[in-house]
Amino acid sequence: MRLTTWLLPAFDAAHDDEPTEVAVVIDVLRATSVMVAALRAGADQILTCREVDEARQIAASRTPRALLCGERGCRPIEGFDFGNSPAEYRPERIQGRDLVLTTTNGTRAIAAVERVPRVLIASFLNLSAVVTALADADGVRLVCAGTEGQVTLEDVLLAGALVWKCQRDHRAEPVDDASVLATQLWQSWFPEQVARGVLPDPTMLSLRFRETQGGKNLLGQGFDADLDRCAAIDSIPVVPERVADHPATFALPVKPFERLSPHD
Amino acid sequence: MRLTTWLLPAFDAAHDDEPTEVAVVIDVLRATSVMVAALRAGADQILTCREVDEARQIAASRTPRALLCGERGCRPIEGFDFGNSPAEYRPERIQGRDLVLTTTNGTRAIAAVERVPRVLIASFLNLSAVVTALADADGVRLVCAGTEGQVTLEDVLLAGALVWKCQRDHRAEPVDDASVLATQLWQSWFPEQVARGVLPDPTMLSLRFRETQGGKNLLGQGFDADLDRCAAIDSIPVVPERVADHPATFALPVKPFERLSPHD
Repeated sequence: MRLTTWLLPAFDAAHDDEPTEVAVVIDVLRATSVMVAALRAGADQILTCREVDEARQIAASRTPRALLCGERGCRPIEGFDFGNSPAEYRPERIQGRDLVLTTTNGTRAIAAVERVPRVLIASFLNLSAVVTALADADGVRLVCAGTEGQVTLEDVLLAGALVWKCQRDHRAEPVDDASVLATQLWQSWFPEQVARGVLPDPTMLSLRFRETQGGKNLLGQGFDADLDRCAAIDSIPVVPERVADHPATFALPVKPFERLSPHD
Repeated sequence: MRLTTWLLPAFDAAHDDEPTEVAVVIDVLRATSVMVAALRAGADQILTCREVDEARQIAASRTPRALLCGERGCRPIEGFDFGNSPAEYRPERIQGRDLVLTTTNGTRAIAAVERVPRVLIASFLNLSAVVTALADADGVRLVCAGTEGQVTLEDVLLAGALVWKCQRDHRAEPVDDASVLATQLWQSWFPEQVARGVLPDPTMLSLRFRETQGGKNLLGQGFDADLDRCAAIDSIPVVPERVADHPATFALPVKPFERLSPHD
Protein backbone atom coordinates (compact mmCIF):
# COMPACT_ATOMS: atom_id res chain seq x y z
CA MET A 1 0.00 0.00 0.00
CA ARG A 2 1.32 3.42 -1.00
CA LEU A 3 0.06 6.19 1.28
CA THR A 4 -0.10 9.89 0.47
CA THR A 5 -1.64 12.74 2.45
CA TRP A 6 -3.18 16.07 1.61
CA LEU A 7 -2.89 18.32 4.67
CA LEU A 8 -5.60 20.43 3.03
CA PRO A 9 -7.97 19.40 0.23
CA ALA A 10 -6.30 19.34 -3.16
CA PHE A 11 -4.21 22.46 -2.94
CA ASP A 12 -2.42 21.47 -6.09
CA ALA A 13 -4.31 18.63 -7.70
CA ALA A 14 -2.94 19.58 -11.12
CA HIS A 15 0.54 18.41 -10.13
CA ASP A 16 -0.68 15.19 -8.70
CA ASP A 17 0.39 12.05 -10.50
CA GLU A 18 0.30 9.49 -7.71
CA PRO A 19 -2.43 6.97 -8.66
CA THR A 20 -5.12 6.94 -6.00
CA GLU A 21 -7.54 4.08 -5.66
CA VAL A 22 -9.07 4.99 -2.30
CA ALA A 23 -9.42 8.40 -0.65
CA VAL A 24 -10.07 8.74 3.07
CA VAL A 25 -11.78 11.99 4.08
CA ILE A 26 -10.96 13.37 7.54
CA ASP A 27 -12.81 16.16 9.37
CA VAL A 28 -12.45 15.08 12.98
CA LEU A 29 -14.20 18.09 14.58
CA ARG A 30 -16.87 17.35 13.61
CA ALA A 31 -18.25 16.51 10.15
CA THR A 32 -16.82 13.04 9.62
CA SER A 33 -17.40 12.09 13.27
CA VAL A 34 -21.07 13.07 12.78
CA MET A 35 -21.31 11.03 9.58
CA VAL A 36 -19.96 7.93 11.28
CA ALA A 37 -22.25 8.40 14.31
CA ALA A 38 -25.36 9.11 12.25
CA LEU A 39 -24.98 6.13 9.93
CA ARG A 40 -24.26 3.85 12.90
CA ALA A 41 -27.43 5.19 14.56
CA GLY A 42 -29.46 4.04 11.57
CA ALA A 43 -29.65 6.89 9.07
CA ASP A 44 -30.11 5.40 5.63
CA GLN A 45 -27.74 7.66 3.75
CA ILE A 46 -26.11 11.09 4.02
CA LEU A 47 -26.17 13.50 1.09
CA THR A 48 -23.46 16.13 1.46
CA CYS A 49 -23.45 19.55 -0.16
CA ARG A 50 -21.69 22.86 0.18
CA GLU A 51 -24.46 25.49 0.38
CA VAL A 52 -27.32 25.93 2.82
CA ASP A 53 -29.86 26.69 0.07
CA GLU A 54 -28.72 23.67 -1.87
CA ALA A 55 -29.26 21.54 1.24
CA ARG A 56 -32.84 22.84 1.60
CA GLN A 57 -33.57 22.05 -2.06
CA ILE A 58 -32.16 18.53 -1.86
CA ALA A 59 -34.07 17.82 1.36
CA ALA A 60 -37.38 19.06 -0.08
CA SER A 61 -36.97 16.99 -3.24
CA ARG A 62 -37.09 13.70 -1.38
CA THR A 63 -40.04 11.74 0.02
CA PRO A 64 -40.15 11.69 2.92
CA ARG A 65 -38.31 14.99 3.23
CA ALA A 66 -34.67 14.46 4.14
CA LEU A 67 -33.51 15.77 7.51
CA LEU A 68 -31.44 18.96 7.34
CA CYS A 69 -28.10 18.79 9.15
CA GLY A 70 -25.03 20.96 9.44
CA GLU A 71 -23.38 24.05 10.83
CA ARG A 72 -21.92 27.40 9.99
CA GLY A 73 -19.14 28.65 12.29
CA CYS A 74 -19.83 25.66 14.60
CA ARG A 75 -23.45 26.84 15.19
CA PRO A 76 -26.70 25.14 14.06
CA ILE A 77 -28.41 26.61 10.98
CA GLU A 78 -31.85 28.21 11.30
CA GLY A 79 -34.66 25.87 10.36
CA PHE A 80 -32.40 22.82 10.26
CA ASP A 81 -33.26 19.61 12.08
CA PHE A 82 -29.78 18.92 13.42
CA GLY A 83 -26.53 20.76 14.11
CA ASN A 84 -23.09 19.23 13.92
CA SER A 85 -22.83 17.46 17.27
CA PRO A 86 -22.66 13.65 17.22
CA ALA A 87 -24.88 13.65 20.35
CA GLU A 88 -27.90 14.82 18.37
CA TYR A 89 -28.01 11.86 16.02
CA ARG A 90 -29.99 9.39 18.09
CA PRO A 91 -31.61 6.32 16.52
CA GLU A 92 -35.18 7.31 17.39
CA ARG A 93 -34.82 10.54 15.43
CA ILE A 94 -33.00 9.36 12.31
CA GLN A 95 -33.52 5.64 11.76
CA GLY A 96 -34.23 4.87 8.11
CA ARG A 97 -34.10 8.55 7.13
CA ASP A 98 -31.98 10.34 4.58
CA LEU A 99 -29.88 13.21 5.91
CA VAL A 100 -28.59 16.23 4.00
CA LEU A 101 -25.38 17.51 5.60
CA THR A 102 -23.77 20.83 4.78
CA THR A 103 -20.48 21.73 6.40
CA THR A 104 -17.94 24.06 4.84
CA ASN A 105 -14.75 22.08 5.27
CA GLY A 106 -15.81 18.45 5.10
CA THR A 107 -17.83 19.06 1.96
CA ARG A 108 -14.90 20.73 0.29
CA ALA A 109 -12.68 17.76 1.05
CA ILE A 110 -15.26 15.40 -0.43
CA ALA A 111 -15.43 17.50 -3.60
CA ALA A 112 -11.63 17.41 -3.91
CA VAL A 113 -11.64 13.63 -4.35
CA GLU A 114 -14.67 13.30 -6.61
CA ARG A 115 -12.64 11.52 -9.27
CA VAL A 116 -11.13 8.95 -6.92
CA PRO A 117 -12.85 5.57 -7.46
CA ARG A 118 -13.57 4.80 -3.79
CA VAL A 119 -14.04 7.27 -0.93
CA LEU A 120 -14.23 6.38 2.77
CA ILE A 121 -15.10 8.52 5.78
CA ALA A 122 -12.75 8.44 8.78
CA SER A 123 -12.86 9.76 12.33
CA PHE A 124 -11.27 8.63 15.55
CA LEU A 125 -14.58 6.86 16.27
CA ASN A 126 -13.95 4.33 13.50
CA LEU A 127 -10.15 4.49 13.16
CA SER A 128 -9.41 0.76 13.31
CA ALA A 129 -12.40 -0.09 11.10
CA VAL A 130 -11.02 2.25 8.43
CA VAL A 131 -7.61 0.59 8.63
CA THR A 132 -9.26 -2.81 8.22
CA ALA A 133 -11.26 -1.53 5.23
CA LEU A 134 -8.00 -0.45 3.57
CA ALA A 135 -6.39 -3.88 3.85
CA ASP A 136 -6.36 -4.63 0.11
CA ALA A 137 -5.90 -1.09 -1.24
CA ASP A 138 -2.79 -0.18 -3.21
CA GLY A 139 -2.89 3.61 -3.56
CA VAL A 140 -4.47 5.41 -0.60
CA ARG A 141 -4.77 9.16 -0.14
CA LEU A 142 -5.64 10.67 3.23
CA VAL A 143 -7.42 14.02 2.84
CA CYS A 144 -7.53 16.42 5.79
CA ALA A 145 -10.40 18.91 5.62
CA GLY A 146 -8.78 21.65 7.73
CA THR A 147 -10.72 24.78 8.64
CA GLU A 148 -11.36 27.58 6.20
CA GLY A 149 -8.26 26.77 4.19
CA GLN A 150 -6.04 26.40 7.27
CA VAL A 151 -4.31 23.20 8.31
CA THR A 152 -5.75 21.88 11.60
CA LEU A 153 -3.86 19.59 13.93
CA GLU A 154 -6.79 17.34 14.83
CA ASP A 155 -7.14 16.26 11.20
CA VAL A 156 -3.39 15.86 10.69
CA LEU A 157 -3.32 13.83 13.93
CA LEU A 158 -5.85 11.31 12.60
CA ALA A 159 -4.02 11.13 9.28
CA GLY A 160 -0.85 10.40 11.27
CA ALA A 161 -2.62 7.70 13.29
CA LEU A 162 -3.89 6.07 10.09
CA VAL A 163 -0.40 6.14 8.54
CA TRP A 164 1.08 4.61 11.68
CA LYS A 165 -1.55 1.87 11.96
CA CYS A 166 -1.48 1.07 8.22
CA GLN A 167 2.29 0.72 8.48
CA ARG A 168 1.90 -1.71 11.39
CA ASP A 169 -1.07 -3.70 10.08
CA HIS A 170 -0.54 -3.61 6.31
CA ARG A 171 3.15 -2.75 5.83
CA ALA A 172 1.99 0.44 4.13
CA GLU A 173 4.60 2.84 2.83
CA PRO A 174 4.16 6.60 3.29
CA VAL A 175 5.43 7.91 -0.05
CA ASP A 176 5.17 11.66 0.48
CA ASP A 177 6.57 14.00 3.10
CA ALA A 178 3.10 15.07 4.22
CA SER A 179 2.39 11.51 5.39
CA VAL A 180 5.69 11.44 7.29
CA LEU A 181 4.92 14.83 8.85
CA ALA A 182 1.49 13.61 9.96
CA THR A 183 2.71 10.40 11.53
CA GLN A 184 5.56 12.30 13.21
CA LEU A 185 2.90 14.40 14.97
CA TRP A 186 1.02 11.29 16.07
CA GLN A 187 4.19 9.66 17.38
CA SER A 188 5.37 12.74 19.23
CA TRP A 189 2.00 13.37 20.87
CA PHE A 190 1.55 9.73 21.96
CA PRO A 191 5.08 8.33 22.30
CA GLU A 192 4.32 5.77 25.02
CA GLN A 193 1.32 4.33 23.22
CA VAL A 194 3.23 4.13 19.95
CA ALA A 195 6.11 2.36 21.71
CA ARG A 196 3.63 -0.17 23.12
CA GLY A 197 1.76 -0.50 19.81
CA VAL A 198 -1.57 0.60 21.27
CA LEU A 199 -3.99 3.47 20.69
CA PRO A 200 -4.33 6.19 23.37
CA ASP A 201 -7.38 6.24 25.56
CA PRO A 202 -10.17 8.73 24.77
CA THR A 203 -9.38 10.98 27.73
CA MET A 204 -5.85 11.62 26.53
CA LEU A 205 -7.02 12.20 22.98
CA SER A 206 -9.66 14.67 24.12
CA LEU A 207 -7.01 16.61 26.06
CA ARG A 208 -4.90 16.82 22.89
CA PHE A 209 -7.91 18.13 20.94
CA ARG A 210 -7.80 21.18 23.23
CA GLU A 211 -4.48 22.14 21.67
CA THR A 212 -5.86 22.06 18.11
CA GLN A 213 -7.53 24.79 16.08
CA GLY A 214 -10.73 22.79 15.70
CA GLY A 215 -10.78 22.04 19.42
CA LYS A 216 -10.24 25.68 20.36
CA ASN A 217 -13.05 26.74 18.02
CA LEU A 218 -15.45 24.30 19.69
CA LEU A 219 -14.39 25.27 23.23
CA GLY A 220 -14.95 28.91 22.30
CA GLN A 221 -18.54 28.09 21.34
CA GLY A 222 -19.26 25.97 24.42
CA PHE A 223 -19.14 22.59 22.70
CA ASP A 224 -16.67 21.11 25.21
CA ALA A 225 -18.53 17.81 25.44
CA ASP A 226 -18.14 17.22 21.72
CA LEU A 227 -14.38 16.95 22.17
CA ASP A 228 -14.96 13.89 24.35
CA ARG A 229 -17.54 12.50 21.94
CA CYS A 230 -15.22 12.80 18.94
CA ALA A 231 -12.36 11.31 20.97
CA ALA A 232 -14.21 8.03 21.68
CA ILE A 233 -11.61 6.13 19.75
CA ASP A 234 -12.75 2.90 18.04
CA SER A 235 -16.21 3.11 19.61
CA ILE A 236 -18.00 2.67 16.25
CA PRO A 237 -16.85 -0.19 14.00
CA VAL A 238 -18.37 0.94 10.68
CA VAL A 239 -16.98 2.79 7.67
CA PRO A 240 -19.20 5.11 5.61
CA GLU A 241 -18.45 4.82 1.93
CA ARG A 242 -19.42 6.90 -1.07
CA VAL A 243 -22.39 5.41 -2.90
CA ALA A 244 -21.65 4.36 -6.50
CA ASP A 245 -22.65 7.01 -9.06
CA HIS A 246 -23.50 9.56 -6.36
CA PRO A 247 -20.50 11.86 -5.99
CA ALA A 248 -21.50 13.25 -2.60
CA THR A 249 -23.70 10.59 -0.97
CA PHE A 250 -22.45 8.27 1.75
CA ALA A 251 -23.85 5.12 3.32
CA LEU A 252 -22.62 2.01 5.04
CA PRO A 253 -21.76 -0.71 2.50
CA VAL A 254 -23.38 -3.13 4.93
CA LYS A 255 -26.05 -1.73 7.25
CA PRO A 256 -25.47 -2.44 10.95
CA PHE A 257 -28.61 -4.54 11.26
CA GLU A 258 -27.53 -6.66 8.30
CA ARG A 259 -24.32 -7.40 10.13
CA LEU A 260 -26.08 -8.90 13.09
CA SER A 261 -26.66 -12.64 12.98
CA PRO A 262 -30.13 -13.86 14.09
CA HIS A 263 -28.65 -14.80 17.45
CA ASP A 264 -26.99 -11.47 18.15
CA MET B 1 5.20 38.66 17.33
CA ARG B 2 2.44 36.57 15.80
CA LEU B 3 3.76 33.73 13.64
CA THR B 4 1.87 31.89 10.92
CA THR B 5 3.11 29.31 8.43
CA TRP B 6 2.17 28.25 4.94
CA LEU B 7 3.32 24.67 4.42
CA LEU B 8 2.94 25.38 0.70
CA PRO B 9 2.71 28.77 -0.99
CA ALA B 10 -0.68 30.39 -0.60
CA PHE B 11 -2.94 27.44 -1.12
CA ASP B 12 -5.87 29.46 0.06
CA ALA B 13 -4.82 33.07 0.22
CA ALA B 14 -8.43 34.18 -0.22
CA HIS B 15 -9.31 32.99 3.28
CA ASP B 16 -6.35 34.63 4.86
CA ASP B 17 -7.09 37.46 7.24
CA GLU B 18 -4.05 37.37 9.50
CA PRO B 19 -2.18 40.66 8.96
CA THR B 20 1.30 39.95 7.68
CA GLU B 21 4.03 42.51 7.89
CA VAL B 22 7.00 40.30 7.01
CA ALA B 23 7.09 37.12 4.92
CA VAL B 24 10.01 34.71 5.13
CA VAL B 25 10.51 32.55 2.03
CA ILE B 26 11.98 29.08 2.55
CA ASP B 27 13.31 26.75 -0.16
CA VAL B 28 16.11 24.97 1.67
CA LEU B 29 17.15 22.60 -1.14
CA ARG B 30 18.29 24.73 -2.83
CA ALA B 31 16.94 28.05 -4.08
CA THR B 32 17.03 30.13 -0.92
CA SER B 33 20.35 28.60 0.16
CA VAL B 34 21.77 29.65 -3.22
CA MET B 35 20.39 33.17 -2.85
CA VAL B 36 21.99 33.59 0.56
CA ALA B 37 25.33 32.16 -0.65
CA ALA B 38 25.41 34.21 -3.86
CA LEU B 39 24.66 37.53 -2.19
CA ARG B 40 27.22 36.80 0.53
CA ALA B 41 29.76 36.03 -2.21
CA GLY B 42 29.24 39.50 -3.63
CA ALA B 43 26.49 39.35 -6.24
CA ASP B 44 24.86 42.76 -6.42
CA GLN B 45 21.27 41.61 -6.66
CA ILE B 46 19.19 38.58 -7.65
CA LEU B 47 16.23 38.95 -9.97
CA THR B 48 13.91 35.96 -9.68
CA CYS B 49 11.45 34.76 -12.30
CA ARG B 50 9.42 31.71 -13.11
CA GLU B 51 10.18 30.91 -16.75
CA VAL B 52 13.44 30.10 -18.52
CA ASP B 53 12.67 32.35 -21.51
CA GLU B 54 11.76 35.19 -19.17
CA ALA B 55 15.11 34.74 -17.43
CA ARG B 56 16.97 35.02 -20.75
CA GLN B 57 15.08 38.20 -21.64
CA ILE B 58 15.74 39.83 -18.28
CA ALA B 59 19.43 38.92 -18.42
CA ALA B 60 19.86 40.29 -21.95
CA SER B 61 18.14 43.55 -21.06
CA ARG B 62 20.79 44.53 -18.54
CA THR B 63 24.24 46.02 -19.01
CA PRO B 64 26.41 44.19 -18.38
CA ARG B 65 24.30 41.14 -19.16
CA ALA B 66 23.03 39.52 -15.98
CA LEU B 67 24.27 36.02 -15.19
CA LEU B 68 21.73 33.25 -15.84
CA CYS B 69 21.14 30.93 -12.89
CA GLY B 70 18.72 28.17 -12.02
CA GLU B 71 17.59 24.60 -12.53
CA ARG B 72 14.85 22.40 -13.87
CA GLY B 73 14.39 19.04 -12.15
CA CYS B 74 17.58 19.72 -10.12
CA ARG B 75 19.70 19.94 -13.35
CA PRO B 76 21.44 23.01 -14.85
CA ILE B 77 19.67 24.72 -17.77
CA GLU B 78 21.29 24.75 -21.22
CA GLY B 79 23.16 27.96 -21.93
CA PHE B 80 22.92 29.17 -18.33
CA ASP B 81 25.95 30.42 -16.41
CA PHE B 82 25.13 28.68 -13.15
CA GLY B 83 23.02 25.80 -11.86
CA ASN B 84 21.45 25.62 -8.44
CA SER B 85 24.36 24.49 -6.27
CA PRO B 86 25.68 26.96 -3.68
CA ALA B 87 29.20 25.75 -4.51
CA GLU B 88 29.11 27.41 -7.93
CA TYR B 89 28.62 30.94 -6.63
CA ARG B 90 32.23 31.93 -5.94
CA PRO B 91 33.20 35.58 -5.46
CA GLU B 92 35.54 35.72 -8.48
CA ARG B 93 32.70 34.74 -10.79
CA ILE B 94 29.86 36.88 -9.48
CA GLN B 95 31.16 39.87 -7.55
CA GLY B 96 29.26 43.02 -8.46
CA ARG B 97 27.09 41.21 -11.01
CA ASP B 98 23.33 40.91 -11.26
CA LEU B 99 21.96 37.38 -11.30
CA VAL B 100 18.70 36.17 -12.81
CA LEU B 101 17.48 33.07 -10.96
CA THR B 102 14.68 30.84 -12.18
CA THR B 103 13.58 27.92 -10.01
CA THR B 104 10.11 26.45 -10.09
CA ASN B 105 9.28 26.27 -6.42
CA GLY B 106 11.15 29.16 -4.84
CA THR B 107 9.86 31.59 -7.44
CA ARG B 108 6.32 30.47 -6.83
CA ALA B 109 6.68 31.08 -3.11
CA ILE B 110 8.03 34.58 -3.78
CA ALA B 111 5.05 35.33 -6.04
CA ALA B 112 2.65 34.16 -3.32
CA VAL B 113 3.76 36.93 -0.97
CA GLU B 114 4.04 39.76 -3.48
CA ARG B 115 1.62 41.92 -1.48
CA VAL B 116 3.40 41.49 1.84
CA PRO B 117 5.30 44.72 2.67
CA ARG B 118 8.63 43.08 3.54
CA VAL B 119 10.03 39.78 2.28
CA LEU B 120 13.13 38.00 3.62
CA ILE B 121 14.99 34.96 2.31
CA ALA B 122 15.78 32.18 4.78
CA SER B 123 17.89 29.03 4.70
CA PHE B 124 19.71 27.07 7.36
CA LEU B 125 22.82 29.00 6.32
CA ASN B 126 21.42 32.23 7.76
CA LEU B 127 18.90 30.92 10.30
CA SER B 128 19.98 32.99 13.30
CA ALA B 129 20.47 36.12 11.18
CA VAL B 130 16.86 35.81 10.00
CA VAL B 131 15.63 35.48 13.57
CA THR B 132 17.59 38.60 14.50
CA ALA B 133 16.14 40.48 11.52
CA LEU B 134 12.63 39.62 12.74
CA ALA B 135 13.17 41.09 16.21
CA ASP B 136 10.75 44.00 15.82
CA ALA B 137 8.19 42.38 13.51
CA ASP B 138 4.61 41.91 14.66
CA GLY B 139 2.98 39.69 12.02
CA VAL B 140 5.37 37.19 10.45
CA ARG B 141 4.45 34.54 7.88
CA LEU B 142 6.81 31.67 7.09
CA VAL B 143 6.30 30.39 3.54
CA CYS B 144 7.57 26.93 2.59
CA ALA B 145 8.18 26.49 -1.13
CA GLY B 146 7.72 22.71 -1.24
CA THR B 147 8.33 20.79 -4.47
CA GLU B 148 5.89 20.77 -7.36
CA GLY B 149 2.95 21.45 -5.09
CA GLN B 150 3.99 18.85 -2.50
CA VAL B 151 4.93 19.62 1.09
CA THR B 152 8.64 18.87 1.71
CA LEU B 153 10.06 18.15 5.14
CA GLU B 154 13.27 20.15 4.73
CA ASP B 155 11.28 23.35 4.30
CA VAL B 156 8.87 22.52 7.12
CA LEU B 157 11.90 21.72 9.28
CA LEU B 158 13.39 25.19 8.79
CA ALA B 159 10.00 26.78 9.43
CA GLY B 160 9.86 24.78 12.66
CA ALA B 161 13.36 25.90 13.64
CA LEU B 162 12.41 29.53 13.02
CA VAL B 163 9.24 29.18 15.10
CA TRP B 164 11.22 27.58 17.91
CA LYS B 165 13.97 30.20 17.90
CA CYS B 166 11.56 33.13 17.56
CA GLN B 167 9.67 31.78 20.56
CA ARG B 168 12.90 31.61 22.56
CA ASP B 169 14.45 34.88 21.42
CA HIS B 170 11.41 37.10 20.83
CA ARG B 171 8.59 35.44 22.79
CA ALA B 172 6.85 34.91 19.46
CA GLU B 173 3.48 33.21 19.46
CA PRO B 174 2.65 30.60 16.81
CA VAL B 175 -0.98 31.44 16.04
CA ASP B 176 -1.87 28.74 13.55
CA ASP B 177 -1.71 24.96 13.65
CA ALA B 178 0.71 24.83 10.73
CA SER B 179 3.32 26.67 12.84
CA VAL B 180 2.78 24.23 15.70
CA LEU B 181 3.07 21.27 13.33
CA ALA B 182 6.33 22.63 11.91
CA THR B 183 7.94 23.25 15.28
CA GLN B 184 6.78 19.85 16.49
CA LEU B 185 8.79 18.32 13.63
CA TRP B 186 11.86 20.35 14.58
CA GLN B 187 11.55 19.36 18.22
CA SER B 188 11.03 15.68 17.51
CA TRP B 189 13.95 15.49 15.08
CA PHE B 190 16.36 17.33 17.40
CA PRO B 191 15.05 16.69 20.93
CA GLU B 192 18.42 16.89 22.71
CA GLN B 193 19.45 20.14 21.07
CA VAL B 194 16.05 21.67 21.78
CA ALA B 195 16.30 20.60 25.42
CA ARG B 196 19.72 22.28 25.64
CA GLY B 197 18.56 25.36 23.73
CA VAL B 198 21.15 24.95 20.96
CA LEU B 199 21.07 24.34 17.23
CA PRO B 200 22.16 20.95 15.84
CA ASP B 201 25.51 20.62 14.14
CA PRO B 202 25.62 20.55 10.31
CA THR B 203 26.43 16.83 10.13
CA MET B 204 23.25 15.89 11.96
CA LEU B 205 21.18 18.26 9.89
CA SER B 206 22.62 16.90 6.65
CA LEU B 207 21.71 13.36 7.76
CA ARG B 208 18.14 14.50 8.37
CA PHE B 209 18.00 16.05 4.88
CA ARG B 210 18.44 12.52 3.52
CA GLU B 211 15.00 11.65 4.89
CA THR B 212 13.28 14.53 3.09
CA GLN B 213 11.77 14.70 -0.38
CA GLY B 214 14.13 17.47 -1.46
CA GLY B 215 17.11 15.55 -0.11
CA LYS B 216 16.09 12.34 -1.87
CA ASN B 217 15.66 14.23 -5.15
CA LEU B 218 19.19 15.64 -4.87
CA LEU B 219 20.72 12.31 -3.89
CA GLY B 220 19.03 10.72 -6.88
CA GLN B 221 20.74 13.25 -9.15
CA GLY B 222 24.18 12.90 -7.54
CA PHE B 223 24.16 16.20 -5.67
CA ASP B 224 25.06 14.58 -2.33
CA ALA B 225 27.57 17.30 -1.44
CA ASP B 226 24.89 19.98 -1.67
CA LEU B 227 23.11 18.44 1.30
CA ASP B 228 26.19 19.25 3.41
CA ARG B 229 26.50 22.70 1.88
CA CYS B 230 22.86 23.59 2.62
CA ALA B 231 23.21 22.16 6.15
CA ALA B 232 26.03 24.55 7.13
CA ILE B 233 23.84 26.06 9.78
CA ASP B 234 24.53 29.73 10.66
CA SER B 235 27.60 29.89 8.41
CA ILE B 236 26.40 33.05 6.61
CA PRO B 237 25.19 35.96 8.76
CA VAL B 238 23.28 37.96 6.13
CA VAL B 239 19.61 38.21 5.19
CA PRO B 240 18.55 38.86 1.59
CA GLU B 241 15.58 41.18 1.43
CA ARG B 242 13.21 42.14 -1.37
CA VAL B 243 14.21 45.44 -2.95
CA ALA B 244 11.62 48.22 -2.61
CA ASP B 245 9.35 48.53 -5.67
CA HIS B 246 10.83 45.41 -7.28
CA PRO B 247 8.46 42.54 -6.57
CA ALA B 248 10.94 39.77 -7.38
CA THR B 249 14.41 41.26 -6.81
CA PHE B 250 16.50 40.54 -3.75
CA ALA B 251 19.63 42.09 -2.32
CA LEU B 252 21.33 42.55 1.02
CA PRO B 253 20.07 45.68 2.80
CA VAL B 254 23.68 46.25 3.81
CA LYS B 255 26.36 44.83 1.50
CA PRO B 256 28.93 42.63 3.25
CA PHE B 257 31.83 44.98 2.38
CA GLU B 258 29.93 47.91 3.87
CA ARG B 259 29.69 45.96 7.09
CA LEU B 260 33.44 45.57 7.44
CA SER B 261 35.25 48.17 9.42
CA PRO B 262 38.55 49.50 7.96
CA HIS B 263 40.45 47.24 10.35
CA ASP B 264 38.61 44.03 9.50
